[in-house]
Amino acid sequence: MKRIFEIDPWLITSHQLEVKDKRLQESITAIGNGYMGLRGNFEEGYSGDHLQGTYIAGTWFPDKTRVGWWKNGYPEYFGKVINAPSFIDIGITVNGVRVDLAKSKFRDFTLTLDMHQGLLRRSFVLEQETATVRFEFARFLSLRVRQAAFIQVTATVLSGNAAIKFDAGINGNVVNEDSNYDDHFWLPDATDATAGYIQMTTRPNPFKVPQFTVLVQQALRRDGVPIQGNVSSEPGRVNAQVTAKLAAGEQVTLEKDVVVVTSRDVAKDAQLVATQKLMQTAQAQSFRENLRSHEALWAQRWRGSDVTIDGDVAAQQGIRFNIAQMFMTYYGEDKRLNIGPKGFTGEKYGGATYWDTEAYVVPMYLAVTPPDVTHALLQYRHDQLPGAYHNAQQQGLAGALFPMVTFNGIECHNEWEITFEELHRNAAVAFAIYQYTAYTGDESYVNGPGLEVLVGIARFWADRVHFSQRKQMYMLHGVTGPNEYENNVNNNWYTNTMASWCLEYALQRLAKGNADVVAKLAVSDTEAAHWQDIIDRMYRPEDKQLGIFVQNDTFLDKDIRPASSIPADQRPINQHWSWDRILRSPFIKQADVLQGIYFLNDRFTQAEKERNFDFYEPLTVHESSLSASIHAILAAELGKSAKAVELYARTARLDLDNYNNDTDDGLHITSMSGGWLAIVQGFAGMRYNHDTLSFKPFLPDKWHSYSFKLNYRGRIIGVRIGKQAEFTLLDGPELDVMVFDQQVHLQEGVHDAQRIDI
Amino acid sequence: MKRIFEIDPWLITSHQLEVKDKRLQESITAIGNGYMGLRGNFEEGYSGDHLQGTYIAGTWFPDKTRVGWWKNGYPEYFGKVINAPSFIDIGITVNGVRVDLAKSKFRDFTLTLDMHQGLLRRSFVLEQETATVRFEFARFLSLRVRQAAFIQVTATVLSGNAAIKFDAGINGNVVNEDSNYDDHFWLPDATDATAGYIQMTTRPNPFKVPQFTVLVQQALRRDGVPIQGNVSSEPGRVNAQVTAKLAAGEQVTLEKDVVVVTSRDVAKDAQLVATQKLMQTAQAQSFRENLRSHEALWAQRWRGSDVTIDGDVAAQQGIRFNIAQMFMTYYGEDKRLNIGPKGFTGEKYGGATYWDTEAYVVPMYLAVTPPDVTHALLQYRHDQLPGAYHNAQQQGLAGALFPMVTFNGIECHNEWEITFEELHRNAAVAFAIYQYTAYTGDESYVNGPGLEVLVGIARFWADRVHFSQRKQMYMLHGVTGPNEYENNVNNNWYTNTMASWCLEYALQRLAKGNADVVAKLAVSDTEAAHWQDIIDRMYRPEDKQLGIFVQNDTFLDKDIRPASSIPADQRPINQHWSWDRILRSPFIKQADVLQGIYFLNDRFTQAEKERNFDFYEPLTVHESSLSASIHAILAAELGKSAKAVELYARTARLDLDNYNNDTDDGLHITSMSGGWLAIVQGFAGMRYNHDTLSFKPFLPDKWHSYSFKLNYRGRIIGVRIGKQAEFTLLDGPELDVMVFDQQVHLQEGVHDAQRIDI
Repeated sequence: MKRIFEIDPWLITSHQLEVKDKRLQESITAIGNGYMGLRGNFEEGYSGDHLQGTYIAGTWFPDKTRVGWWKNGYPEYFGKVINAPSFIDIGITVNGVRVDLAKSKFRDFTLTLDMHQGLLRRSFVLEQETATVRFEFARFLSLRVRQAAFIQVTATVLSGNAAIKFDAGINGNVVNEDSNYDDHFWLPDATDATAGYIQMTTRPNPFKVPQFTVLVQQALRRDGVPIQGNVSSEPGRVNAQVTAKLAAGEQVTLEKDVVVVTSRDVAKDAQLVATQKLMQTAQAQSFRENLRSHEALWAQRWRGSDVTIDGDVAAQQGIRFNIAQMFMTYYGEDKRLNIGPKGFTGEKYGGATYWDTEAYVVPMYLAVTPPDVTHALLQYRHDQLPGAYHNAQQQGLAGALFPMVTFNGIECHNEWEITFEELHRNAAVAFAIYQYTAYTGDESYVNGPGLEVLVGIARFWADRVHFSQRKQMYMLHGVTGPNEYENNVNNNWYTNTMASWCLEYALQRLAKGNADVVAKLAVSDTEAAHWQDIIDRMYRPEDKQLGIFVQNDTFLDKDIRPASSIPADQRPINQHWSWDRILRSPFIKQADVLQGIYFLNDRFTQAEKERNFDFYEPLTVHESSLSASIHAILAAELGKSAKAVELYARTARLDLDNYNNDTDDGLHITSMSGGWLAIVQGFAGMRYNHDTLSFKPFLPDKWHSYSFKLNYRGRIIGVRIGKQAEFTLLDGPELDVMVFDQQVHLQEGVHDAQRIDI
Repeated sequence: MKRIFEIDPWLITSHQLEVKDKRLQESITAIGNGYMGLRGNFEEGYSGDHLQGTYIAGTWFPDKTRVGWWKNGYPEYFGKVINAPSFIDIGITVNGVRVDLAKSKFRDFTLTLDMHQGLLRRSFVLEQETATVRFEFARFLSLRVRQAAFIQVTATVLSGNAAIKFDAGINGNVVNEDSNYDDHFWLPDATDATAGYIQMTTRPNPFKVPQFTVLVQQALRRDGVPIQGNVSSEPGRVNAQVTAKLAAGEQVTLEKDVVVVTSRDVAKDAQLVATQKLMQTAQAQSFRENLRSHEALWAQRWRGSDVTIDGDVAAQQGIRFNIAQMFMTYYGEDKRLNIGPKGFTGEKYGGATYWDTEAYVVPMYLAVTPPDVTHALLQYRHDQLPGAYHNAQQQGLAGALFPMVTFNGIECHNEWEITFEELHRNAAVAFAIYQYTAYTGDESYVNGPGLEVLVGIARFWADRVHFSQRKQMYMLHGVTGPNEYENNVNNNWYTNTMASWCLEYALQRLAKGNADVVAKLAVSDTEAAHWQDIIDRMYRPEDKQLGIFVQNDTFLDKDIRPASSIPADQRPINQHWSWDRILRSPFIKQADVLQGIYFLNDRFTQAEKERNFDFYEPLTVHESSLSASIHAILAAELGKSAKAVELYARTARLDLDNYNNDTDDGLHITSMSGGWLAIVQGFAGMRYNHDTLSFKPFLPDKWHSYSFKLNYRGRIIGVRIGKQAEFTLLDGPELDVMVFDQQVHLQEGVHDAQRIDI
């Protein structure tokens, strides 16, 4: 754990430049607007260790797969989000000396991410022998004009005289740190110093992945007045210099407006015109006005999603940070996009789509955003069905295998134990359809496009199982469960259980699907009967003596001992132990059996849940950012409130406290829902089975109260849990909810809140 | 199967240039002398598809490991034999037109590898409009001067007039096809056109692997008379041109003598002097004289090793090809070397040392070469003990883990399922010590250096097992057995059995070891007792009902069906099926349980052997070149003579008939012992337990007879199996052998042969 920012309910602030942890500081101060995003790099540049990061959603490069020995069925490339042209650059020299916080003398450093509106501010006082100058920076990526970034820097001379030179530029000569063969994914197309833009295209590739062209333009304002500056260029780079000679007490403000357009939306030849139009829109407002309209849109987002925690400011900060970062990554505006594990905050995991979206993000987005946001995430998978069929075919199998990692539906990871074996992602895609349908009550997706997805998935599982003559049961050999600290196991209980559930759900929905879709899918009686046979005779390993589901065959033969037996200096084990040792150990990376119990929650008795939790949680090292939340929810359900609170702390401030010592690479965006899930599904015990919202809330000891909002079937419901549980219908038609198995009627305007003792 | 050479007992001949199978033709016509080797590339060059290959033993490059995701414990580099400077080059133009069999018109092509002495001959008649010229090439790598290669080309004008220009060169600007990052492993140091040499050094590396420097020099003779030619050079390349204008009936012979010296033997600065001295020795004899002395040394090798098969010329050719190619790869002159799976015939597998040496080559070399050749192979592992300790430590384990792949003792493969898990190689190293000791009767190795190896190995196993509380037995989870078509399995019967055997043998030999070595090793009573406990309680999966040993946990849950059920057009499965499908299938790549039964042959009853063979062999696809021989031996032992003969055919002519469709990459050198083992241990039933040589011979139906020689404890014994079995003591003191449990006394000179009816 390492906490480098101060505790505050709405701000992420530090008064210290973290030289050793610059990358960590950059990750946490990343901002985005769903269209693009930036790590917390410094406008003026920084010569110390850091990770340059500018990312434009949906622009990626298929980097030729690098493996030791090729195996049939391997994906040909690993898709990678591209480090995009850097457009925040405003180099600064004062009296001829370059400002570089890795070298310059400075004081009063402040860095603040304002979570209200995704605004990043920074200031410091530069101390030269003959002058001291305060620099104040602000930047945001607009929600109003999503292609636009606004950057402002103000220099105030505190003493002496300062000749200040700003060098505002766009630099396309950037590289990915994570690149298999070539450093440069971009080739320059056009550069125009006077018009202030560069146009770049991604390198050609042999994999039929489209090349992307982006055009990035900057325009400057000095003290609010447009200015061109002294321009220059080289291929892939434009610069404009603005100079100011200031005496003590004088100040200058430079504003840099940036517009980014990509070939995803605008064809290459039309990009310049489109950009100039957008630039006009951007420049029609001042920096302050642009910020105000941006903030208004953020306020609207917060109205339906804010969570308050009274009595624990660190927890309050953690949950808001998570919500803000998630919304900065994705808010459903573009159905071709999804949520990468690092969002716009780093290169790791290639920036592609993982099962995290369905398993961890969907359950939260359903409740904190309008339904069309989640619907867009579902639609994304449907649109990628051809890729899923391709993936199954690559393995010699029928049906649709959704990818573990993808940009376009085609699997693009490069390790067989993930690509070929971590099949459970296919179930998560189906389960998200179930969740969406159960929560929203909207059956239009599952009866149409969703049914195509479900049947594709069912056909995959039906072909992937084999029938064991010896045990007279269906089995899934050679899989990797959610616990990636074991690979290539047989009969992973979670995978077998969820595969069977997929078949069951597909059969159930086929009976209700739109006639034309059902006809097109043509599931014969024989096929359906075969699915039913698999459901009936699926092998799900259990240990009757221990009364638990067994994670996979022979798991219980391991040297079973609790994670607490691992010496502290060997944690996290993935940074200290060889892969061999990890695989053989009994230690579990993240919920596996318990993930299944979480998903299919109403199928298990309390005693079953308890025995499995008590067996598996102590073995779990929670070294996936996706782990703590699921355990917190189950702990809460089982009345283990202290455990639930402990696990909540790990998930809610995972990045802010750098729990897993890897946030320098970028934030764990897709696991940021964990804190919300732990509060809402855990502490408040929210469930939504059978068209009913229900709650079994408790209040963590140290908290005075907590509150959250639910978007539920055309309503906004406010929930506040203090000594009592309070339910308020903020918007929408009346409704009954269940609280501790007691029916509570909510009606707008009738009462401020329904209060129930807990 | 593809047979591109003619059947002949001593020659490998073709009358056709294989344009589509040029690489295959090159592999089969490779020659070597243990110091270096060459694929069957053409002296005059060839512009069609081919694989350039010149290899110098022990010169390699640590190519930075390429993997998808790094895992703790991974080796940092993959060692690769370097494609060395090409020194056979003799470019030819006739009347100004370049001779290139990919383009030129020619007839009467003949290509012959003479296995008597590793001599490669080639001839063709070039047909131009104004001239026809016969070209005859011969080349060999000398056994007398191992640093020397001799190449001869004779041009005879059959009609017309021919201006012939030879361009003899050495070219260091060569690349490996298999290179992870950079094409060039070599950097030029010095080039001297007049002295006719280049000196090259391998690129620097960050892994502390020494750089290698080689100096390659050529000298020419025209019609036997030294000649310099018209010399030229560029960095890393020298050339000398010789021209001849010939009328019909005239001929010219150009001889090119080459000497190669490396920094493994001669420091960089001393290489030129050393090379010139060797060149003098080489040139002191004519090509023909050099060939004669080379042939004499080959004859000596054949005297103790030749196998004859009367009645099956294809089989005869196969076994001689294997013996010749193995001897061309390794004859024990340099203890720092070992036997790469492809020898000097290709780049695949990096040219490094695998477990193949101990498991498949040692049992044959013990009998066909003097004991010091095998001793050198054992010594190699002892000398690499520090690397083995390093490997275990990389996995967080005690003791010594010999590498799966290495040049220097340090593991250099790059897949976790091999590197971290295919641990059985450690047992093969120990078993080779047992075999050497049992066969030769020489205990000096096992009591000294060998004991250090055994204890290092034992300590590794003792730390690698875990104790299963549930089963109250020791287990080995997370291993890969010899059957690489399953990965990361638990309790592989072979590995568990051999690990236990290693502990047993280490304890047994510790009791007899040299006092100083035993003292230094300091195995305490507690440690020894722990080893004994592991031996006593090692889990070895069995199925009582089927009466078989189980390949690994849950193997019997698979969809068990015979390999004969695989459609022919899907064989070999490794070229048709996805890795996922292969792993889940019941199909076995090579002997696994049966490998253990082969090694520990006297520990199992005939019924046990039979049940296991009958269960596992039908599941086996024999897609490893190492598979058929072990099965042939067991089949023979079980009286399944038809099966034994069928499997023998696959191993004895694996490369000549391109059975596995991959000989284009190079020959399967380390599996070439398979044919010999199948004949001697299989058909002749040779065993050597308990200081006794024993035989249970049979004669394959179609053969009239077969014969082989055994170097055994200072003797050479001739064995001939026809309608009777004949045993002749060709050299050395008298001896009793067992034939069908009957004692047979062999005495030199007393009888020509002891004959026993079979």
